[in-house]
Amino acid sequence: MPEAKPDNRLVSRRGLLGGTAAAAAALSAPVAAQGDASIEWKMVTSWPKNLPGPGVTAQRIADQVGKMSGGRFRIRLYAAGELVPALGVFDAVSAGTAQMAHTASFFWQGKVPASVFFTAAPFGLLPNEHISWIEQGGGQELWDKLYAPFGIKPVMAGNTGVQMGGWYKKKLSGLEDLKGLKIRMPGLGGEVMRRLGATPVSLPPGELFQALQTGVLDATEFLGPWSDRSMGFQKAASFYYTPGFHEPNGTGEALFNETALNGLPEDLRTILLEACRAENGRALAESDWQNATSLQILQEKDGVEVVPYPDEIISALRTETKSVLEAFADSDPVSREIYESHAAARDRMAPWSDVAMRRFLAARDGSV
Amino acid sequence: MPEAKPDNRLVSRRGLLGGTAAAAAALSAPVAAQGDASIEWKMVTSWPKNLPGPGVTAQRIADQVGKMSGGRFRIRLYAAGELVPALGVFDAVSAGTAQMAHTASFFWQGKVPASVFFTAAPFGLLPNEHISWIEQGGGQELWDKLYAPFGIKPVMAGNTGVQMGGWYKKKLSGLEDLKGLKIRMPGLGGEVMRRLGATPVSLPPGELFQALQTGVLDATEFLGPWSDRSMGFQKAASFYYTPGFHEPNGTGEALFNETALNGLPEDLRTILLEACRAENGRALAESDWQNATSLQILQEKDGVEVVPYPDEIISALRTETKSVLEAFADSDPVSREIYESHAAARDRMAPWSDVAMRRFLAARDGSV
Repeated sequence: MPEAKPDNRLVSRRGLLGGTAAAAAALSAPVAAQGDASIEWKMVTSWPKNLPGPGVTAQRIADQVGKMSGGRFRIRLYAAGELVPALGVFDAVSAGTAQMAHTASFFWQGKVPASVFFTAAPFGLLPNEHISWIEQGGGQELWDKLYAPFGIKPVMAGNTGVQMGGWYKKKLSGLEDLKGLKIRMPGLGGEVMRRLGATPVSLPPGELFQALQTGVLDATEFLGPWSDRSMGFQKAASFYYTPGFHEPNGTGEALFNETALNGLPEDLRTILLEACRAENGRALAESDWQNATSLQILQEKDGVEVVPYPDEIISALRTETKSVLEAFADSDPVSREIYESHAAARDRMAPWSDVAMRRFLAARDGSV
Repeated sequence: MPEAKPDNRLVSRRGLLGGTAAAAAALSAPVAAQGDASIEWKMVTSWPKNLPGPGVTAQRIADQVGKMSGGRFRIRLYAAGELVPALGVFDAVSAGTAQMAHTASFFWQGKVPASVFFTAAPFGLLPNEHISWIEQGGGQELWDKLYAPFGIKPVMAGNTGVQMGGWYKKKLSGLEDLKGLKIRMPGLGGEVMRRLGATPVSLPPGELFQALQTGVLDATEFLGPWSDRSMGFQKAASFYYTPGFHEPNGTGEALFNETALNGLPEDLRTILLEACRAENGRALAESDWQNATSLQILQEKDGVEVVPYPDEIISALRTETKSVLEAFADSDPVSREIYESHAAARDRMAPWSDVAMRRFLAARDGSV
């Protein structure tokens, strides 16, 4: 585990000053107490360099930490594959190969199943509701507990917002149309679809467009209009479904090696955590703005039709989600604990979001 | 205007070191370049000390700046009335009596009418949409322009969330019931109500409960369930209306004296701005959580009935809002510019919020 290095400039100056070294050391004492030794960290990420959304957030965290620390704390960012593979960042932080990572918790489902709840759960929490759960409703403590065996401390760092339901080549009339439907939808949402008769297909992002175009897939979800349009899905399918029942939130995850984090002086640790926290509002605002812009282009220029899932399908998705999540919670005690905390937060937040946000949106848009 | 003071400890040590002063000065140079002189600022606020929501946000900004700067930048908070009155903070920052303030932009409507848009406009932007407008849609530049004549730089710092529509002693059947209704609703929302036949009454917060109880008021808006319940309105009126058409957002405002802000070294300036930015997600999450909790208590224990405005009233409010805002925009060129930028952001964001958020909320809650 690389530790904080002493500032080389400081060391060589001390050497140069010769006889004044003791005085210089005394003088620099309060500075060292403030963590003025120059510290360099590695941040491994699961994204290509400057990927719109999460890649930009990761770079901005590194940049802001550098600025706020006056250059005393430098974080070097490694794109996916540069130091470790995209999905190797959890193990790298656990082992101390890198002091931190920027990634998303749902990647670790194979290792720690309940990690998925810290990105999103089907019919779960919207971005602001999710932040409320983590910061006010006990979510952070459970997230900490989940990763503690790996020597990792997680925090929220950015948000890509609410997802769309996905791209379909044919319009859905009702539940019958889901039978045999070849759809890319990973995780719990895919399991819900499977129980309704669809066939979830697992494919990496780079192969999705061609698979949709050639008919290997009948449908695929990915993210929101901003990313989806850059993937070109609008050239392979015309119907863009809503809502993204399976992923109503897109919290980015910063992972810290606990020993490295605890070894930081308090000022630099606070700077690092505050830089991550600032991204929760900033990245979401950027994603929402870009999603809104791309949605308009998709509808007005690309001829895409935005379609709500038929009521019959929504209702069945909701019912199956309940039993999929219940079954999931039975897998181990910590999954049960996290599922119940998440469900309690949803039950607490939902009536307020309905009264305050949904009613306002309906009134503004003239739906009432 | 108090300037950054040199660190006294550093000065006295230099004196003590005598002959090594030159060497010491050379050594401490990079430290000084990082803004290591001890700086003290005054933050005046429009809130009682630690007022839930904005008062807590203001104190947290001061605390986080202290921690992130390792104590080099200390901000002393003054509650409303301690140094200047609640509504004297704008002038105090402009004059340099205090280097910064924590407040809300709609207080300055008498001085700069368009300032109201930087808190909320009737049928305007939800919290996340507002952040998108400010950070992505040109809102910050217009806000800067609006306050530049006063030597003030504004930024967002916290958010109290979506408001409720207000407390009514009698249920509303339709537009007829607004005629002669004595309601407390300040600003543009009050003007909309006036055009629909209501009588807006101006009263300070401390007098609202009694006025509602004795019938001086038939109705009053205030904020959301968290604050409203602490005001006791549920003991004077039984019907809690939604949506808060007049204030869908509650952005807190940090004001900086421009000379003071520009005089900060880059590290401390970045720390200060990032501490304000981190509150946008954090304070909103806290307000939403507390509002959700209080809403539940109001309904289950206090016997309050949450009632949506009748469609006829919503529709009339929307129509009148349009003409009130148009008339407002005619008052001066900068008001027109801000109105148009805000309207463009709303028109861009609304379809995305409808497709992504409203559809999800409806599906989750079983409204479809």
